[in-house]
Amino acid sequence: MSFAADVNKKAIDLGRLSVEMTTAAGSGHPSTALSLTHLVTVLMYQQMRWDPKNPWNPGADRLVLSEGHAVPIVYAAYADLGGMVTPPGKTQDKSAARALTRQDVLSLRAIESPLDGHPHPQVGVPFFDAATGSLGQGLSVAAGLGSAARMDKIDRNIYCIIGDGESREGQIWEAMDYIADHALTNVVTIFNCNELAQSDWVSPQQSSETLARKAEAFGFITRIIDGHDPDQIAKAFNELHVIKNGNRPLAIVARTVKGWGASMEQGMGKHGTPVKKDQLPELFKELDQTARDLGVAEHQDQGRLKIRPITTQAPAHQTTAQKPIKAAAFAEGLAMVGLDKDLAAGKGIAPRKAYGAALVALGAADKRIVGLDADVKNSTHAEWFFKKFPDQYLECKIAEQNMISVAAGVSAAGKIPFCSTFAKFVERAYDQTAMAIISGANLKITGSHAGVTLAADGPSQMSLPDVAFFRSFCHVKNFNGQPAVRYFFPADAVSCYKLTELMANLDGCCYQRTLRADVKALYKPEETFEVGGYKVLREGKDLVFVSAGYMVHECLRAADELAKNGRKATVIDAYSLPLNAKGILEIASRNGNQIVTVEDNYTGGLDAEIATANSTESAGIKLKNLFVAHIPKSGREPQDVLDYLNLGYKSIVKAVG
Amino acid sequence: MSFAADVNKKAIDLGRLSVEMTTAAGSGHPSTALSLTHLVTVLMYQQMRWDPKNPWNPGADRLVLSEGHAVPIVYAAYADLGGMVTPPGKTQDKSAARALTRQDVLSLRAIESPLDGHPHPQVGVPFFDAATGSLGQGLSVAAGLGSAARMDKIDRNIYCIIGDGESREGQIWEAMDYIADHALTNVVTIFNCNELAQSDWVSPQQSSETLARKAEAFGFITRIIDGHDPDQIAKAFNELHVIKNGNRPLAIVARTVKGWGASMEQGMGKHGTPVKKDQLPELFKELDQTARDLGVAEHQDQGRLKIRPITTQAPAHQTTAQKPIKAAAFAEGLAMVGLDKDLAAGKGIAPRKAYGAALVALGAADKRIVGLDADVKNSTHAEWFFKKFPDQYLECKIAEQNMISVAAGVSAAGKIPFCSTFAKFVERAYDQTAMAIISGANLKITGSHAGVTLAADGPSQMSLPDVAFFRSFCHVKNFNGQPAVRYFFPADAVSCYKLTELMANLDGCCYQRTLRADVKALYKPEETFEVGGYKVLREGKDLVFVSAGYMVHECLRAADELAKNGRKATVIDAYSLPLNAKGILEIASRNGNQIVTVEDNYTGGLDAEIATANSTESAGIKLKNLFVAHIPKSGREPQDVLDYLNLGYKSIVKAVG
Repeated sequence: MSFAADVNKKAIDLGRLSVEMTTAAGSGHPSTALSLTHLVTVLMYQQMRWDPKNPWNPGADRLVLSEGHAVPIVYAAYADLGGMVTPPGKTQDKSAARALTRQDVLSLRAIESPLDGHPHPQVGVPFFDAATGSLGQGLSVAAGLGSAARMDKIDRNIYCIIGDGESREGQIWEAMDYIADHALTNVVTIFNCNELAQSDWVSPQQSSETLARKAEAFGFITRIIDGHDPDQIAKAFNELHVIKNGNRPLAIVARTVKGWGASMEQGMGKHGTPVKKDQLPELFKELDQTARDLGVAEHQDQGRLKIRPITTQAPAHQTTAQKPIKAAAFAEGLAMVGLDKDLAAGKGIAPRKAYGAALVALGAADKRIVGLDADVKNSTHAEWFFKKFPDQYLECKIAEQNMISVAAGVSAAGKIPFCSTFAKFVERAYDQTAMAIISGANLKITGSHAGVTLAADGPSQMSLPDVAFFRSFCHVKNFNGQPAVRYFFPADAVSCYKLTELMANLDGCCYQRTLRADVKALYKPEETFEVGGYKVLREGKDLVFVSAGYMVHECLRAADELAKNGRKATVIDAYSLPLNAKGILEIASRNGNQIVTVEDNYTGGLDAEIATANSTESAGIKLKNLFVAHIPKSGREPQDVLDYLNLGYKSIVKAVG
Repeated sequence: MSFAADVNKKAIDLGRLSVEMTTAAGSGHPSTALSLTHLVTVLMYQQMRWDPKNPWNPGADRLVLSEGHAVPIVYAAYADLGGMVTPPGKTQDKSAARALTRQDVLSLRAIESPLDGHPHPQVGVPFFDAATGSLGQGLSVAAGLGSAARMDKIDRNIYCIIGDGESREGQIWEAMDYIADHALTNVVTIFNCNELAQSDWVSPQQSSETLARKAEAFGFITRIIDGHDPDQIAKAFNELHVIKNGNRPLAIVARTVKGWGASMEQGMGKHGTPVKKDQLPELFKELDQTARDLGVAEHQDQGRLKIRPITTQAPAHQTTAQKPIKAAAFAEGLAMVGLDKDLAAGKGIAPRKAYGAALVALGAADKRIVGLDADVKNSTHAEWFFKKFPDQYLECKIAEQNMISVAAGVSAAGKIPFCSTFAKFVERAYDQTAMAIISGANLKITGSHAGVTLAADGPSQMSLPDVAFFRSFCHVKNFNGQPAVRYFFPADAVSCYKLTELMANLDGCCYQRTLRADVKALYKPEETFEVGGYKVLREGKDLVFVSAGYMVHECLRAADELAKNGRKATVIDAYSLPLNAKGILEIASRNGNQIVTVEDNYTGGLDAEIATANSTESAGIKLKNLFVAHIPKSGREPQDVLDYLNLGYKSIVKAVG
């Protein structure tokens, strides 16, 4: 009884604090927080092995609050336990840390507060690994943490709390498949079934019974419990040490009450609405009554709630400074995957193959490199990595959303995840990518078959708005002061190999486009590449082509054609964003004062980059932009599709008149 | 026996044609096509009620091939049946149509062919409603078609074929939940379990047994069949008329063989690889042997395969010309939802509320309007529509991907779907949106709580790259010659009301951002708005602010501040993309030759639009761009967050010196 009494007492206390902080903030989700009072209490005060004084400890168990809006209850517990927080933007700076106090939580959601409206690891609570709040993503992050723990052979459990309404998101079921496939019994999936979503009751498809049936069908050992019964919660967790020895992971379906403990917070219409200040006394009265009903009004804490100590050693890569990662030289890297013959024969090599080779070379250089792919590894050439380093590879099957969020979890464990799939299918996971960026994840994404030159498969496989999307992040500073995204689009094998190596050494999110087609080498193996860099491949005084990827080759062909008529074109390979555009404007100023951008994507990429620099610098360069300006269709050869889109070299020549 | 013999004979014939066409194309997926020989034969020659001579008939049953790469088998059947095709881009032009021949299919994937690499309804095969090939989306489209049929009270069945590997995509399970919730027994879900995905065997999580268990858990009546046994297939379909009277939809889990009929196309490594020309004779020999094994080598078709006639009348809105949709006048529309008091009192009205009012007014004007929302209808204010027109509303719960693809299906049934959720959560469905655009869907998306001024909830709820993403489509022509996306960002209630009405009358995809905050009225009710339009709210000779949404108000405040120091600013509300930027450049040329764009999103929106026009027109305007340049955090008030991001009116004043 005393364990249950301790939990009940604490649950009411934390519930009260949750309500108070949301009232102080004037917004937030007290009713959801109240539904998690007992689960969070048992987890944070009893079940999890962690240290409030050192939330950075990479050996600690982790909680991923997928249902991010429930965060006040976690803040309440964290404050009660004196968990360490940092000023916004300094999460990794332990010297700036201090213990959160119960008084502090009243700053919830204020601009200067480390306590954001939803978990936001970069603004001050290192307890969290993932920014959540865009629903349905947390379980994948937990799975990534679980996978990383397996790779590191450390005994670390990852708990993930998911809302019942939230479990409508398909990504949850992608994560369930992934967890089952990888037998991640160190991940515990907890459904918080409080029966109410935002605008209505949850569907019968998300009832506790249906969720339990689904979890069973997905291969989980499933327990339905009363999420407000401390003993039932503890019992479910107590099974974990047995379950961990098996292959089937644990799912706990917890029946809870939204607004638990206070009827005025229960029922429809209480989602995301703080209690008004003048109603707080009434709410507290209700909580007091609940305490009396549970027989804990006068209960003195008996010290049964004790945080378990961390039992595992953190992996070395998490505790010692890591050197820059040096991949083998280009030729050596290509030899590792059998491309040496193609190289020696002077054959064109597709950038996607160079990516595969670079990944192998990076894997050989550093164990932190993790490869992930979504069932197209034989197309992206991540397969070579998989074959050489099967223990550092995570097959994600056809589920891109899960892949990106898994990678965010892998990154949170101090590893360097390299994800690949067709660039088009990365689009499936843009929200997950954006959330990983908010989380500060060290995420590397390579989208293969970029642009339109895959040709025959048609537009369902062509990535076209991707450059505009990722460019928009390139001019946003992350909390580390670096661009939120570094973007690369190599035009040949050498540059792809080198840029992949560069990505491994940059902290933060990188996005790289690779080409399906074998393309001619443009660079010598000793060439170097950098963020924002570009290469002048040919200088001619009449006009300047600025391009990237496949279209660089098409621009070179166009320049050849123009040369026949005595016009000399400069051709620039602008392989990176954010681009050092000033240098390019300067080149244009001495070469005809005219830039023609040529891209195999929709507008908003290089064209916007150059135009913006030109306009903000008042450089006065005349600009012409060629890009994919109508929706493509299949063509058997790249040239067919390029011509159809008025982007073939002949069209380019015509366009520059 | 003779039914089975007829099917077997036809299956081999179509299989052969599928292989031939992919060999001719030099790419494609013959092995996947072969796994569907019998299912497609029974469906297209027997089960479906449709008319190859009139594939446009809105009363016909439909097939959604979610597994788009299997399309050669459908093309083979369509050609064999003389289905009508049109030249690329003229799908709705019946006068340009002709019957596809068996010879025609050898043009597969050629640039001039109507037969694209994946289903692509806009390029010539009106049999399809949805572009597929980005996996996992078809079932949602089928669900949308099923919902529309229910609304129209027509007896139309929608068949959807899904690959087993593809069923890893979470969206499939979102669609299953939706179909179960809405008891769409007119949708038949068919899993093609050929056990092989692209790079490997499918996971045990996608085995036929597991898929059946999952489908059961999701509430479906589930049948596991041999997908190459004509009688088992027919028997499963024969249950449909009974199942349709119930509440639980039918899922057929068909065990098939990838490369059925020809061992050389079976096993690993045969995905997406056409048979080489010189190996065709060997493959045909194998198919001939299969025919002998099945006892149909000498079989003469006994005419048992007959396409069933269409039994239902198409809804009137599909067969008669529809007038432009005229919503009630602004004040009247607001009164419909009880906002008349706020209006009379001169209170600020949030654009999201005006959206809700406009949707109600549109619903009253035209029955084609369908509202969809993802459990935030009380925030987006789609709830008002739901309450007035529950039969025209589709609740999608927390599953945005499914919502957008359902809307694509609803559009394919001739309706006008208006989807809403937080703008941030639309990001979840960018790939689905892109696929709907390729399909030519008449899709209206409104993202509420746009930008950063929702403030307290933090960045997990803030849409920031959305403007760049959608802008990239604004300069792409769809097959109807119109921009692939028309984008709107109204700054007050009047403009939002009018733009919502405008969206209803535009053919194609529109994206609108709405604001959470109540904002002051900028326009009189009689003001008009147009695609590409802008409004000069104030003209001052020293500089020009170009902005949209909330930031227009902030620019007006900044202009007030500047006026105190004698500087006069022009303020332009650029509420639409693609923007008529030339006019704005012209205004700037007489007002200080300087434009300052002010946006509450990441770069790539108005800034790119103006910069590009300025550079391509050589207008010589000096540009300064203010946008969200670092990752936000929570703040209690919009002003806190704007100031944190250097976007508050004081920062604007400071930035312009």
